[in-house]
Amino acid sequence: MSIAAQAPAYIRAISPYVPGKPITALAREMGLAVESIVKLASNENPLGMSPKARAAVEKAIAGIERYPDQFELIAALAERLGVAQNQIVLGNGSNDVLDLAARVFLAPGRSSVFSQHAFAVYPLATMSAGGECIAVPARHYGHDLAAMRAAIRPDTRVVWIANPNNPTGNFLPYAEVKAFLQAVPADVAVVLDEAYNEYLPPAERVDTVAWIRDFPNLIITRTFSKIHGLAGLRVGYAVASSEVADLLNRVRQPFNVNNLAIAAACAALDDHLFIAESYELNRRGMEQIVAGLKRLGLEHIPSHGNFVTFAVSDGAAANQKLLRQGVIVRPIGGYGLPNHLRVTIGRETENLRFLEALEISL
Amino acid sequence: MSIAAQAPAYIRAISPYVPGKPITALAREMGLAVESIVKLASNENPLGMSPKARAAVEKAIAGIERYPDQFELIAALAERLGVAQNQIVLGNGSNDVLDLAARVFLAPGRSSVFSQHAFAVYPLATMSAGGECIAVPARHYGHDLAAMRAAIRPDTRVVWIANPNNPTGNFLPYAEVKAFLQAVPADVAVVLDEAYNEYLPPAERVDTVAWIRDFPNLIITRTFSKIHGLAGLRVGYAVASSEVADLLNRVRQPFNVNNLAIAAACAALDDHLFIAESYELNRRGMEQIVAGLKRLGLEHIPSHGNFVTFAVSDGAAANQKLLRQGVIVRPIGGYGLPNHLRVTIGRETENLRFLEALEISL
Repeated sequence: MSIAAQAPAYIRAISPYVPGKPITALAREMGLAVESIVKLASNENPLGMSPKARAAVEKAIAGIERYPDQFELIAALAERLGVAQNQIVLGNGSNDVLDLAARVFLAPGRSSVFSQHAFAVYPLATMSAGGECIAVPARHYGHDLAAMRAAIRPDTRVVWIANPNNPTGNFLPYAEVKAFLQAVPADVAVVLDEAYNEYLPPAERVDTVAWIRDFPNLIITRTFSKIHGLAGLRVGYAVASSEVADLLNRVRQPFNVNNLAIAAACAALDDHLFIAESYELNRRGMEQIVAGLKRLGLEHIPSHGNFVTFAVSDGAAANQKLLRQGVIVRPIGGYGLPNHLRVTIGRETENLRFLEALEISL
Repeated sequence: MSIAAQAPAYIRAISPYVPGKPITALAREMGLAVESIVKLASNENPLGMSPKARAAVEKAIAGIERYPDQFELIAALAERLGVAQNQIVLGNGSNDVLDLAARVFLAPGRSSVFSQHAFAVYPLATMSAGGECIAVPARHYGHDLAAMRAAIRPDTRVVWIANPNNPTGNFLPYAEVKAFLQAVPADVAVVLDEAYNEYLPPAERVDTVAWIRDFPNLIITRTFSKIHGLAGLRVGYAVASSEVADLLNRVRQPFNVNNLAIAAACAALDDHLFIAESYELNRRGMEQIVAGLKRLGLEHIPSHGNFVTFAVSDGAAANQKLLRQGVIVRPIGGYGLPNHLRVTIGRETENLRFLEALEISL
């Protein structure tokens, strides 16, 4: 028997994640100049990284030969969030902490529940751990929490909820999420993925971390890849009850977050000016793109993130036409939305370039 | 039932890895100045990172808001190693690729074989995947390949071999490793961990990557954390047959290696001057430390890495005395060697400081 046949069937059944096309890849493929390409495909911050984070990275380069020490970032997050240090688990991006949750609670013979059109990492992490995926049909492209509650089986050990959701941008009112937590059996972990939390209007945000006291099965995940502009550095985190955090740490690779990411995240956490600027740029850019889509007669899904998903008659064809013009957006056929495209909110000029290119792609 | 009790027993049984004490941690604990501390605990390169890698990192900072693209490093490694690009799997340090191998080939009901006193990540990765650990008694502190072959059971799917081994520094002659590959069933993956490969004298190194053609079950892992001085950036890789690499990529997180690590590794690969300088510093430092240990009447295990393990009468006590003098080495009780300490080869002045502190710690 061949070596590859020795991998369990659930590993062999995985289709790897398809990332947004990198600028350099499009440049190679189409022979375009890197500078001429606009990438609005991966929900990255168009302002780049915060100046404070940049200064911290430059300072930390001097110690790059040392294995990382997570102490400082864990302490800063715990203080900021009002939890104990042993409730914070750092990840190599929030992808990593999602994966840790799957490894701790899933296994062959167990299942996880998530919504149709939810983040691709939920089924990937579930399958990698040998778990079974239960995808619940969406309601208006978002989570149908009643149906998700009903879909929980005796073998279900994890429910994944993204709020706001990616790639559709839907937002679940906090009261509904809390009611869901009350309805879910206490021995089922609920992973609340808040990667886009910082793009919600500050007045609308609720301190979900405080819920962990009442729901020790709640795992909240956040990232520095979005509003903080550190996607390339890879750092995210989970907040959970100390007993769940302890389990996540058992499967965590000891040096899963690099030195520079730790330094940058510590500085980014305090750069309120940059966060406010990024928030405001996104708010204005969202208005610009939504107005443009309406002008083109295209329907969009109202979004609470730094991206918006809109319908075209043929997603693959429109995407190819955009690529030929050097504009990278995200086709989301893999999310069951073959005739939608997701565009990240960029700078004003990038948004304009996208809208112009889209107009001649329809 | 509590949420924590839902984790499978094999997850709850894991004891997390105990890393080398960071300089900042010792400074906090003992109230010492950071500058006064010598850390020779984690087999880091005392020269830091290569100047070429540093320049590459500084250049790559500008694109930190973008998700990483692994293309360039995979292409560079494939060319350097004479393999196809689809035979390279990048990892967040080689720890990550070791973990991927465990996830692909191990599961409850399967086992892995490794040597007593071998790298701690082998049992950790095995247990995280639900596999059973078969630790084979060492011979002269190193791998007993005949006993390891005999320990392979019908349910064994992975054998881990570190060459040179950490923390003992033993080296297995290539002919013995090759004979072992010939003797192992073709459906058992053999992970050959060559993290310390670049510290072997160039004339003694054999192109083990070329063996993959004959042994599609062979997975070779290497790292940029050791001679390349990039431990804090987290980058390593596996080379395997394309079918095995494909499986590893299925469980790999898509953005597991950060932007700056990719840029640094590409540059480090070509900085032959820095590699030669690091090699030579290690060779001289090894002579210095071994001579010092002999002078103190301490037995050591002849080492082929950038560290050396030596016997003391009471490992924990000697370690505490060293710590109080601001010298961090690695206690290896967790490796079944409670009365040995492992010291990393540092700069000449660091080695001297260690030897002086050791003399008054005995």
